Amino acid sequence: MPGDVLLVRDDETGIATVTVSQPARLNAMTTAMWARLGEIFNTLSEDAALRCVILRGDGDRSFSAGADISEFEQTRADKEKARFYDTIVRPAMRSVAECTVPVVAAIAGHCRGGGFELAACADIRVAGESASFGVPTARLGLVLNFEDMQRVLDLVGPQNLKEILFEMAVVGSQRAYEMGFLNRVVADDAVMSEAQKSAERIASGAPLVQRWHKRFIAALVEHGDSSRVPASLKEEVHLAFDTADFREGRTAFLEKRPPVFKGR
Amino acid sequence: MPGDVLLVRDDETGIATVTVSQPARLNAMTTAMWARLGEIFNTLSEDAALRCVILRGDGDRSFSAGADISEFEQTRADKEKARFYDTIVRPAMRSVAECTVPVVAAIAGHCRGGGFELAACADIRVAGESASFGVPTARLGLVLNFEDMQRVLDLVGPQNLKEILFEMAVVGSQRAYEMGFLNRVVADDAVMSEAQKSAERIASGAPLVQRWHKRFIAALVEHGDSSRVPASLKEEVHLAFDTADFREGRTAFLEKRPPVFKGR
Amino acid sequence: MPGDVLLVRDDETGIATVTVSQPARLNAMTTAMWARLGEIFNTLSEDAALRCVILRGDGDRSFSAGADISEFEQTRADKEKARFYDTIVRPAMRSVAECTVPVVAAIAGHCRGGGFELAACADIRVAGESASFGVPTARLGLVLNFEDMQRVLDLVGPQNLKEILFEMAVVGSQRAYEMGFLNRVVADDAVMSEAQKSAERIASGAPLVQRWHKRFIAALVEHGDSSRVPASLKEEVHLAFDTADFREGRTAFLEKRPPVFKGR
Repeated sequence: MPGDVLLVRDDETGIATVTVSQPARLNAMTTAMWARLGEIFNTLSEDAALRCVILRGDGDRSFSAGADISEFEQTRADKEKARFYDTIVRPAMRSVAECTVPVVAAIAGHCRGGGFELAACADIRVAGESASFGVPTARLGLVLNFEDMQRVLDLVGPQNLKEILFEMAVVGSQRAYEMGFLNRVVADDAVMSEAQKSAERIASGAPLVQRWHKRFIAALVEHGDSSRVPASLKEEVHLAFDTADFREGRTAFLEKRPPVFKGR
Repeated sequence: MPGDVLLVRDDETGIATVTVSQPARLNAMTTAMWARLGEIFNTLSEDAALRCVILRGDGDRSFSAGADISEFEQTRADKEKARFYDTIVRPAMRSVAECTVPVVAAIAGHCRGGGFELAACADIRVAGESASFGVPTARLGLVLNFEDMQRVLDLVGPQNLKEILFEMAVVGSQRAYEMGFLNRVVADDAVMSEAQKSAERIASGAPLVQRWHKRFIAALVEHGDSSRVPASLKEEVHLAFDTADFREGRTAFLEKRPPVFKGR
Repeated sequence: MPGDVLLVRDDETGIATVTVSQPARLNAMTTAMWARLGEIFNTLSEDAALRCVILRGDGDRSFSAGADISEFEQTRADKEKARFYDTIVRPAMRSVAECTVPVVAAIAGHCRGGGFELAACADIRVAGESASFGVPTARLGLVLNFEDMQRVLDLVGPQNLKEILFEMAVVGSQRAYEMGFLNRVVADDAVMSEAQKSAERIASGAPLVQRWHKRFIAALVEHGDSSRVPASLKEEVHLAFDTADFREGRTAFLEKRPPVFKGR
């Protein structure tokens, strides 16, 4: 197939790097690439020793230009085909968003359409200063689905989601940062090293805590208020106190040394 | 009556411009003006060929100074009269917020009280660099209703809504931008031209898509999470794939030419 | 005990100042201090003549370094002890968040862990330019409870809450401002004077309106949308129109003089 999704896992750090790759088309995503992306993230979510994932595009010109429109005639030409497409792309997006460990998106260059929505599935977004962002689906005559809109809405609010969708503008990193879409803007040649630093900081934290916090925040966002989070999930807050890692963290703090967590 | 609301509709572009006008009182809104504003937006929402609305104040000194307090003795002097007032003003605000096409607020000068709440009903807000913003109702002994607060809250978060209401401060455009209230700050003499550019970009998108996206985002904001959006509305996401405009958009993209949308 | 919480109430202005004090440990909070903090805020909430509270740390080096970890062996060593801890700390946080009058946090220096969560309970946050912020509980092997996370989430969104929790970074005032955590950043030696100015502005507003607005915004945040706010609470919006303060506010406005509110 013309594109691929690559996985490299560093056993020492517990950091996996996932690269969407179709450089000749600015890493546009074919249906096959979406399917592969979903499989990879499902596998990573089962990996108990994993601590963080970096999600990036191949090369430094593009994170992803979005859906590969050249295949739309086959995959998205009418309502029925579009449903099929949704059975591939939406689960793939969910696999990234619901990955059990934190995901850092390293964004260099183009971040557009489905690529923008994919970046919104990550937990932390680091971008180069000349990266560019936009979702010009109104120019294509196409609507977003509710889940993709929700993830962007949670980050930037209705006024900025409307700016992106209604005006179909391409905005730069500074504006994307001010919207709340990016956590930080760095020099173009530092995107990968800064994403790596972020991942290493994340990997140095107690692994169970990072996973709990990710699930807890997802529950808060879904339920909209802590008062509506199910009691069974709230109960899990107390489990951390009985972990070996909490004893290690407390002891290391009092002994003024870095903790060594085991994930249990 | 001392004030008026003016409507100009450009048939060529599909852009309507609505001007609230009582320049001698910084475009303060009388009850009659609120009623007229609501009627105009209800009519615009029925206009199938409309693509965008620009909402502005008359002149370059004020968007709107808010409710015309000089009439409060007649219209808002006690609880019963206030209920009547609410039957006029709240539906007018809703007519703007629920207008079927995107609304761009062009904000020059004063944007205060009810004028601020009115601007919050728009989808995109463009302001001049010396515009000023505030809702000093606590100085008047008056509370906002929940819908008006909700719209501002959705844009700026509880901390900034509290700053505006509790401190009764007048803030400048830069601070209003940083709060998330404004999409962009431009030179004072460029407010209308930038709002016009925004409207033209919006008008160049597929009209059905712009209307769908506006309804979909409103549903997400109301329900708080995509998981609670009614299935019947979610189903509409697929309708776009069967429109003539989607075929045109896809074809134009592949032929590398601008699309010509028909709104069907 | 090694730390204390101090209360000073200015009868003339109606502004109370609450100081968390354990300067030798950067105002880290012992269980006894949390309990005392809760008692003080419960008392303040009963004070009908109160108009605003300033919450600060003792000295200019620290707002609060968070929970006093030196007592964890006694208070938080396992799940059962942690439950007890939660019966003290969580109600104290709630007493601050639900204080009947606006609370302004004056933040100089360290604002970390439980100190950061405490600052999130305030309505307005003013910080010095060299203040620093972070919640490194993942380094301690500890999870936050849902209420504490919710309050931060409401201010900074999921992407920034994740940055704070996952990366365990210490961020400066400018970044905390850009996240939405701070309302303003001021010179280090102006933190208290700016917090005082904020409190005085708040105290000059109609007291019933400030209290109503605080309750109304809390209801909007809890219910997630104005459409879900109980009708009985919505009805209260109309009560303001029958207050003596509304008549005073309207009259003062028309007579172009400052209003003198009585809180009734």
